[in-house]
Amino acid sequence: MSETKILLTEREMPTHWYNIQADMPQLPRPPLHPATGKPVGPDDLKAIFPTSLIEQEMTRERWVEIPEEVREIYRLWRPSPLHRAHRLEKALDTPARIFYKYEGVSPAGSHKLNTAVPQAYFNKKEGIKRLTTETGAGQWGVALSQACNFFGLECTVYMVKVSYHQKPYRRSMMEIFGAKVYASPSEQTAAGRRILSAEPDSPGSLGIAISEAVEDAAGREDTNYALGSVLNHVLLHQTVIGLEAREQMARAGYYPDVVIACCGGGSNFGGLAFPFAHDKLVRGSKVRLVAVEPSACPTLTRGKFAYDYGDVAGLTPLLPMYTLGAEFMPPGIHAGGLRYHGDSPLVSQLVHDGVVEARAFNQTDVFQSAIMFARSEGIVPAPESAHAIACAIKEALAAREAGEARTILFNLSGHGFLDLPSYDAYLAGKLEDYPLPEEELARSLSRLPRVDLG
Amino acid sequence: MSETKILLTEREMPTHWYNIQADMPQLPRPPLHPATGKPVGPDDLKAIFPTSLIEQEMTRERWVEIPEEVREIYRLWRPSPLHRAHRLEKALDTPARIFYKYEGVSPAGSHKLNTAVPQAYFNKKEGIKRLTTETGAGQWGVALSQACNFFGLECTVYMVKVSYHQKPYRRSMMEIFGAKVYASPSEQTAAGRRILSAEPDSPGSLGIAISEAVEDAAGREDTNYALGSVLNHVLLHQTVIGLEAREQMARAGYYPDVVIACCGGGSNFGGLAFPFAHDKLVRGSKVRLVAVEPSACPTLTRGKFAYDYGDVAGLTPLLPMYTLGAEFMPPGIHAGGLRYHGDSPLVSQLVHDGVVEARAFNQTDVFQSAIMFARSEGIVPAPESAHAIACAIKEALAAREAGEARTILFNLSGHGFLDLPSYDAYLAGKLEDYPLPEEELARSLSRLPRVDLG
Repeated sequence: MSETKILLTEREMPTHWYNIQADMPQLPRPPLHPATGKPVGPDDLKAIFPTSLIEQEMTRERWVEIPEEVREIYRLWRPSPLHRAHRLEKALDTPARIFYKYEGVSPAGSHKLNTAVPQAYFNKKEGIKRLTTETGAGQWGVALSQACNFFGLECTVYMVKVSYHQKPYRRSMMEIFGAKVYASPSEQTAAGRRILSAEPDSPGSLGIAISEAVEDAAGREDTNYALGSVLNHVLLHQTVIGLEAREQMARAGYYPDVVIACCGGGSNFGGLAFPFAHDKLVRGSKVRLVAVEPSACPTLTRGKFAYDYGDVAGLTPLLPMYTLGAEFMPPGIHAGGLRYHGDSPLVSQLVHDGVVEARAFNQTDVFQSAIMFARSEGIVPAPESAHAIACAIKEALAAREAGEARTILFNLSGHGFLDLPSYDAYLAGKLEDYPLPEEELARSLSRLPRVDLG
Repeated sequence: MSETKILLTEREMPTHWYNIQADMPQLPRPPLHPATGKPVGPDDLKAIFPTSLIEQEMTRERWVEIPEEVREIYRLWRPSPLHRAHRLEKALDTPARIFYKYEGVSPAGSHKLNTAVPQAYFNKKEGIKRLTTETGAGQWGVALSQACNFFGLECTVYMVKVSYHQKPYRRSMMEIFGAKVYASPSEQTAAGRRILSAEPDSPGSLGIAISEAVEDAAGREDTNYALGSVLNHVLLHQTVIGLEAREQMARAGYYPDVVIACCGGGSNFGGLAFPFAHDKLVRGSKVRLVAVEPSACPTLTRGKFAYDYGDVAGLTPLLPMYTLGAEFMPPGIHAGGLRYHGDSPLVSQLVHDGVVEARAFNQTDVFQSAIMFARSEGIVPAPESAHAIACAIKEALAAREAGEARTILFNLSGHGFLDLPSYDAYLAGKLEDYPLPEEELARSLSRLPRVDLG
């Protein structure tokens, strides 16, 4: 039997991130200023982002060098292993070859640390002393806390209040790394105080937490803001995943027929898929690229390709993306990291142009797949990552049906050690599939800002 | 800078476990039957253990082959990485070279899976359908649940009731892998029912849970019992850790001056240290071997070298070991895996004969070291493993004091993702050092069974 894990040495770790903007048939249209409706320029972003990240957001250079200081931290867990899922293949009785890249080996437990580290590094280099961010379920907050700790930056996290109380383990992780964590809405910001005075028991939302983190950063010279997905530079940093995976697949002696990752804001999907998209766009590869999302928050499969705000309050720039409307409130699925109304403009453009496919899966199918994977491969996956597993299993069964030894690669973006109550709910039969709230979706889509996408 | 992680390929994984009984200057005296006081023979153990494990318990062959079926499962995470703690060295400003073997990469999150897998395998091979065990904090229960799942065995875990309610995440893990978990004392066994009728609110104890698991296994033909530490065959299986580490140290170009691991029942310590003990006993190496325990449960540093029971009720064989007395109730420290009154007979004999040293550390020092490690190396350690970290830091500071570039190796036996509430307590200043209950210890030691060890 061939190897179970394909490993790279630290010397084989990528030296550059891959920027798909160099190869896209059509670039996304520019973000627009929420007040003026004019394209956002570098200067508009300087209040909350460092120059180097703004440059990375806009550059069309194909390769962006990874600084040695970032590579030094990456080496704590990178290159991450590529696994051949021999036991899952057997359980499915499929001729398909299933591979997964495992990002749960990062000390934060997910791929989020791949971008948290360079974001902290570039801010530190430009004299910033403190970063603010928002977090929902907490994966991103944990990663940024660790990254700030590595570079001696202060870190303030606005954590959606309902998660702050429901997910105390992730809050503990942030505090171990020295972060200050506030339940949002908080008394720390004008935005938070305004909401608390109107609704003292507000459970909070990602939109509110973003407003608080941005307000905090904009108001202090020494403080910047950091975002864990959606933006171009975030996806850029995550391509280290796909660059390693492409090399590891070559070592294994296979090239994937299909590359699969879950997709919330898009950084996990873009991270794995973009280097393969390069092969498809530039080298004529026929690889299929599949972004997987929850049926309860089907941005790419049911949303509209339009300009929309990143937050509920309409404070962020307008981004050209697939969206369910900034006012859409997704049902309370357990994959908190996939409950976002919008999506990365890069991923959205590639879906629009037919380079990337999108699929949606129900919550109970996702958990059923997660249990099957855990019992075969040992690893309990994060609910977000389990969406990719569900799709990979479906592809493997299709290969069996067709009698073809197809090669499937997916990203296992994180482990589920801090998501075990969700598994309890599933095993107790208490986990439901949410029908898509069609009326709310129609209403939300009808209220999109009226900006022509062209 | 040299590499951060030293990796082995799957082909370089050990093919045999190392049995220190082949090399010990003096073998432990035999276990004694609790009723007759006579040495326990293979037949006495057949009611609850398979023949192959009984043979491994008693053999003096130096090498025991690892079956291919076990190696196939090991390959899901083994060989585990050896890390050079560059960032911790810098934080300590020490000339010492600090290495750690990281067993938290196992899907169970700790080294326990190294023995759970072969125990499940050998039972399966002899026709057993079901295993029972006890678990305290839950690391062992999780590992055995996974291992039984891999080989299609049923698994029943008696989990100490107070932990069952306080550590629901570990119970969830066991249930994901299909185990049946009972809060102990339970209604499932005569032993459990007897205690419940006398004390309906009993919080349970490891001693009670052992009684339940053994009774359950002894009463059914198709069922055996599995133990997660203490016994010779358990330590044998764990030597895969030290065999890999010794090879990895050679790749790094260093041989350790000191090898450190925490020690509860002894399997984690023996697993790392025994291959180096071989070098010391047979090849004249001067390596120091240090077993680290909590000051609140100082079996090796304050216990008596004597025959004692493994459980509170006195149902298990009498083992020759360091013990605080089977009636000793250790204070409620957070390193639940180190709260055991006794110790492995193999480790005990080596301490008695001066081959192994023992050290005890206070709980707050241990957590302070854990935080320092996490902030340097990224990984949040299990509280048990943090005892080894505390000792490694002390050795690194001694090396700085002496101005010597000593080489330190320790075992990071598990991660702390499921122990975060303990960190909360520490960071909130709510975690205390327990003075050793001297009077209780004296009373407990005075009631040891009167069996001469000499």
